[in-house]
Amino acid sequence: MPEPVSQKILLPRTCSEHWTVPVMTKITMAQGAGGERMQEFIREFVLNELDHDFGEIPLGALDDAAIVDGIVFTTDTYTVKPLFFPGGDIGRLAVAGTVNDLSVMGATPVALSCAMVIQEGFSTDELHTIMRSLNSTARSAGVRIVTGDTKVVEKAAIDGLFINTSGIGRRSPHLDHNIAEIRKSRAFKWEWPNDSGVSDKDVIIASGPIGNHGVALLSFREGYGFDTVVKSDAAPLNHMIAEALKVGGVTSMKDPTRGGLANLLNEWSEKSSVGISVREEAIPMDEAVIAACEMLGIDPFEIGNEGKVIMAVVPEKAEEVLKAVRSVPEGARASIIGEATAGVRGVLMETHTGGKRVMEPPVGDPVPRIC
Amino acid sequence: MPEPVSQKILLPRTCSEHWTVPVMTKITMAQGAGGERMQEFIREFVLNELDHDFGEIPLGALDDAAIVDGIVFTTDTYTVKPLFFPGGDIGRLAVAGTVNDLSVMGATPVALSCAMVIQEGFSTDELHTIMRSLNSTARSAGVRIVTGDTKVVEKAAIDGLFINTSGIGRRSPHLDHNIAEIRKSRAFKWEWPNDSGVSDKDVIIASGPIGNHGVALLSFREGYGFDTVVKSDAAPLNHMIAEALKVGGVTSMKDPTRGGLANLLNEWSEKSSVGISVREEAIPMDEAVIAACEMLGIDPFEIGNEGKVIMAVVPEKAEEVLKAVRSVPEGARASIIGEATAGVRGVLMETHTGGKRVMEPPVGDPVPRIC
Repeated sequence: MPEPVSQKILLPRTCSEHWTVPVMTKITMAQGAGGERMQEFIREFVLNELDHDFGEIPLGALDDAAIVDGIVFTTDTYTVKPLFFPGGDIGRLAVAGTVNDLSVMGATPVALSCAMVIQEGFSTDELHTIMRSLNSTARSAGVRIVTGDTKVVEKAAIDGLFINTSGIGRRSPHLDHNIAEIRKSRAFKWEWPNDSGVSDKDVIIASGPIGNHGVALLSFREGYGFDTVVKSDAAPLNHMIAEALKVGGVTSMKDPTRGGLANLLNEWSEKSSVGISVREEAIPMDEAVIAACEMLGIDPFEIGNEGKVIMAVVPEKAEEVLKAVRSVPEGARASIIGEATAGVRGVLMETHTGGKRVMEPPVGDPVPRIC
Repeated sequence: MPEPVSQKILLPRTCSEHWTVPVMTKITMAQGAGGERMQEFIREFVLNELDHDFGEIPLGALDDAAIVDGIVFTTDTYTVKPLFFPGGDIGRLAVAGTVNDLSVMGATPVALSCAMVIQEGFSTDELHTIMRSLNSTARSAGVRIVTGDTKVVEKAAIDGLFINTSGIGRRSPHLDHNIAEIRKSRAFKWEWPNDSGVSDKDVIIASGPIGNHGVALLSFREGYGFDTVVKSDAAPLNHMIAEALKVGGVTSMKDPTRGGLANLLNEWSEKSSVGISVREEAIPMDEAVIAACEMLGIDPFEIGNEGKVIMAVVPEKAEEVLKAVRSVPEGARASIIGEATAGVRGVLMETHTGGKRVMEPPVGDPVPRIC
């Protein structure tokens, strides 16, 4: 339970303003969940405590990767539970996630690190399987693990295995062309696609069905049974993204991981100062994912994905970029889901029934420990 | 307990050859401890499973950092227990350790990542303190944290907090001069100082007293009382190393972390194909560290340090490099401790009593969870 103390408010108050406000002095699960609580966490502990203005895309941009001295640099620790799940395992996830964070910045991934913390007593067979998965996923992305670290800790200190992968990348050879194509139709002050790059009339493309990773994990973990048809989508997307950049006109890209599509679109709206409207019927989704979310009372747009990218593209190039994304197997079901609009803010979704609802940024995470 | 199964031997046998050999199918603490068991672990799970020949200094070199496409890249996860200890905390350790791994490769650190896994319920006050420590240590090293990640996991899944820092660096501006100075006196085929760079007659320098970090941690954790006088040495050493490179003639550098001085010297012996002889009385040590190790029955040369560097230097430049190291506060007690000899292997120590003993590579770790 929170202990009431007199310090800055970190977390939402449920009491009225007439009462002394109890302040959280302990970290909560929601603070690592990719929603609004996490944004507050980042302001309080990261932006407030760390120097954050160093580099071309600095820490303070809170983008998928930083860019410093021409190097694109990103990190993620994977604490997924269980370690093996329908469609993948922690090794595949750890490589795909970091490759994708580099790729959505417009980088070609160069190399990854792999740092593992392992529970004493962990199965050597399972570890071999995970190492092979790390390697084969890296190979399929054309990238290599070049440095690493292993810590073994006592059983009580960790649940199984965590993997951190950090990644370095270089500016994609297709990025100059991509940006030149944007500048044919409008001003674009950035040298990289980034969260602030979305402008009026940009078309929003989703590279494939939404919600699969989170539903597969939750269903498998809890035994709901949807995992027989819903698999994790974890996959490296650098080749797909390269195809899109070759066409050109991509103003921003982002992978809808923690916090899902809802968090991603709201981040774009805030950082790019645009409104975003999407049509629910245009968002690709599997029937089983829809059924699972309805049964479990989960918003599919707040669930994390690990093999999808959302792109904002100048309207002149949208159809051509869509075609390029669809030319790659992982993008076969890509679709135009909406567009950006200047002069407004927030995310508005036209529902199946023709109504409109605000797609709020998630507060916490409907499905924890999926990445 | 190990389960006997029929597969490749991973771990040492204590039974006679007349018996069926029980094979470990579970990861043990010793495999993460920086000694011989860890070397076996790396061969079995890293070299055996991952492509490891990519880059200028590839994964397969098992050096302190990889060098790929002109970028020096390293990673470490810190699982130290407790998080706050005499002389430092996990934040200081996480920055110093990664800065040092870059620096001993001859790199100037450019930027760090910081990925935290935090236990639900962790104290926000402690987290603020750790973030400040990360930032102030990074500032003192002239480097910045530019990208990060936070995961919060349930209480049962982790013991407090783990931090992964990865780091990127660029070739030090002093490295060309350093290598030119080596080449004045002998052939040197490398463009970077690395574990294979030590040659006949190279002088071995220790930058300061050995064993403090491990003894401080163990004593504080177990309540032995030595921590009132012995503090952790955790510190970034990039400025000290730059001073040494300015002088030139440094053929290899390494920080004696897990496995301590004994592991470091044996790694040099093996990778550089030289013998190394050291004089016990020349190795700087604090009286309280000696007393603690005697009382606890621990070999001080097998304990991890977090603010020391061991350098191999061509004899012509040894005194001058020693002076440069001593000019920096962290190197005030630096000393020449021995030398390398061609045609032999292993590490030989002349003891206080004038005898000689082989300094074996440690098997496991006398003090776990210190980094």
